[in-house]
Amino acid sequence: MPSIPYPTVHPPTRVLMGPGPSVMEPSVLNAMGRPTLGHLDPAFLEIMDEVRVMLRAVFRTDNDLTMPMSGTGSAGMETVLVNLIEPGDRVLVGICGVFGQRMAEVASRAGAEVVKVEGEWGRALDPDALRKVGGSFKALCLVHGETSTGVLQPMEEMRGIADELGALLIMDCVTSLAGVRVEIDSWGVDAAYSGTQKCLSCPPGLAPITLSPRAQHVLSQRKAKVASWYLDLTLIGSYWGEERAYHHTAPINAIYGLHEALRVVLEEGLEQRWARHAAVSQHLYEGLGAQGLELRVPREERLAPLTAVAVPEGVADARVRAALLKDHDLEIGGGLGPMKDNTWRIGLMGAGATKAHAELCLSGLRSVLG
Amino acid sequence: MPSIPYPTVHPPTRVLMGPGPSVMEPSVLNAMGRPTLGHLDPAFLEIMDEVRVMLRAVFRTDNDLTMPMSGTGSAGMETVLVNLIEPGDRVLVGICGVFGQRMAEVASRAGAEVVKVEGEWGRALDPDALRKVGGSFKALCLVHGETSTGVLQPMEEMRGIADELGALLIMDCVTSLAGVRVEIDSWGVDAAYSGTQKCLSCPPGLAPITLSPRAQHVLSQRKAKVASWYLDLTLIGSYWGEERAYHHTAPINAIYGLHEALRVVLEEGLEQRWARHAAVSQHLYEGLGAQGLELRVPREERLAPLTAVAVPEGVADARVRAALLKDHDLEIGGGLGPMKDNTWRIGLMGAGATKAHAELCLSGLRSVLG
Repeated sequence: MPSIPYPTVHPPTRVLMGPGPSVMEPSVLNAMGRPTLGHLDPAFLEIMDEVRVMLRAVFRTDNDLTMPMSGTGSAGMETVLVNLIEPGDRVLVGICGVFGQRMAEVASRAGAEVVKVEGEWGRALDPDALRKVGGSFKALCLVHGETSTGVLQPMEEMRGIADELGALLIMDCVTSLAGVRVEIDSWGVDAAYSGTQKCLSCPPGLAPITLSPRAQHVLSQRKAKVASWYLDLTLIGSYWGEERAYHHTAPINAIYGLHEALRVVLEEGLEQRWARHAAVSQHLYEGLGAQGLELRVPREERLAPLTAVAVPEGVADARVRAALLKDHDLEIGGGLGPMKDNTWRIGLMGAGATKAHAELCLSGLRSVLG
Repeated sequence: MPSIPYPTVHPPTRVLMGPGPSVMEPSVLNAMGRPTLGHLDPAFLEIMDEVRVMLRAVFRTDNDLTMPMSGTGSAGMETVLVNLIEPGDRVLVGICGVFGQRMAEVASRAGAEVVKVEGEWGRALDPDALRKVGGSFKALCLVHGETSTGVLQPMEEMRGIADELGALLIMDCVTSLAGVRVEIDSWGVDAAYSGTQKCLSCPPGLAPITLSPRAQHVLSQRKAKVASWYLDLTLIGSYWGEERAYHHTAPINAIYGLHEALRVVLEEGLEQRWARHAAVSQHLYEGLGAQGLELRVPREERLAPLTAVAVPEGVADARVRAALLKDHDLEIGGGLGPMKDNTWRIGLMGAGATKAHAELCLSGLRSVLG
């Protein structure tokens, strides 16, 4: 028998400046510790309704079907794709990082015939590359904030392209929501998903999603049942909607946390919050430049909440990150795919998007790089 | 614009004595509020390892593939079924309640040819009914503690029956784990799943699962990819295993909570905990009997953590539950399926399995029933 039970966990306090989880709002952690309610308690149903109203405000949408799924951001991706795609559907996916690749993989497992438009990692996709594919598609899938590269994909043109393809417009806004401008309705996005652990500064565990009336119509016209029972929006939508039909037991305390996180976002104001993220990232860029560090992404394509930095020639990526963690209790992220071992990802998200955090990271890097 | 943001949530303190979520361990809620770590932080990887070791102890198994999935109990069900079943597989499902029905539905969406053996709601299944189906099956699926009826399905004979059918033995132990005897290895169960919000007294949000080496072998021999990327054990097993390959961002704080919940269970001792649940339910049975209330399940088939009570003739189910909630801050559950409107479900689970809770419920019922 091993020496169990182990003692209670007392995790070290880290400053989370990687690709997420981010620096948490203390009031969110407090909210998550409040008394658990039953999932059909009238007091909880009211909290659910408030969460939906606030989520719509943060997504900038009137979409009725707007709610958090009971899983992390990737469950949000899977929810949108398995509900809207049926076997044999043609799906066009824009890829210039891990999360574009993941959308293609998830769509393919949902039975889609996936057509990929691949771009350079560290750059946004050229809309013309999408446009010239031509033909007809069920959905056009794009990543707004590519967490693996720190690139922001401009979305304004995409509705027009989706229309040319006859496609639903599906958007990953895991790392962009509440950190940079996201406009579901005015951009004409049909379905989007996010996560709680980025610019919402909430622990991971929920995936906010939103579907336009058009996407809801597509869902209602499905021929085949959704392959996933757990993520089936025709079922879970009834619990979050008027009917309150029991589906699964909602993660009550996580939803308290999301409620508080959304509250904090709206109290600050979305425009102010986006401006703060932009200003603080600017401060970081300048400081990194002053240390002679180079950024991976051209200025106009940068995702403010997440900055990709080139590891200088001759510097061992892993050693630097380990030293930051060990000596400074500071977490930054490494690279993925072609950026593995040669890129750092620095997050300035939500509660962590402050000048003080940027300074902390700059001084940590200065001290470790010597 | 509605009057948002809303104020911070301050949920009322309810005594949760329905089918779950249950009365929470205060130390679990505390643990969930501790500082969030990155999902690849060495300190978090250590916590994950401790969770796996403690989960194995609670499941009574040596299974390597034992871990919490990032979703609620139903995500656990879906994980086990979509990973082990391929399109066209024959699956035998024992059904005498909602969760047996759900297993059949999820297996069917995974492409299985489902054969159902249905029994009376409120009774355990007769093993002979399973045995006499005959033929060959990929899996035999059974519910150990049927949350919709409060029935405990004896499992000792089931390995033999599964062997006659050439089947993997799959078990739902959402409401039984840590409340009554569960013996994954000595019962020869190949795959099982549970939830955190029942006898573990932890908020909903995670689904502990365990797979035997035989089930792992079946998984490794799949011809088709698992339809769900999010729940694909060949991928997520690499994150929880040696490789630490990034899959999705684990729900860090929820895992702190599970760590603490498992710690509390093992500190008490499993045998002691089972005995406590048995003794307290006995106390409840006697008190209900003294009030002239009848139980739905014969004594020897009762699931100690959850008691199904017949709503007396002429009494309005919903009115009683609403009054308990409103005047006593006490939640008990209503019935489902054929037990809707005519059955109450009273949970005595985990931290809520005390004589004081049984008394509280008895006195609440006494006062409301008049």
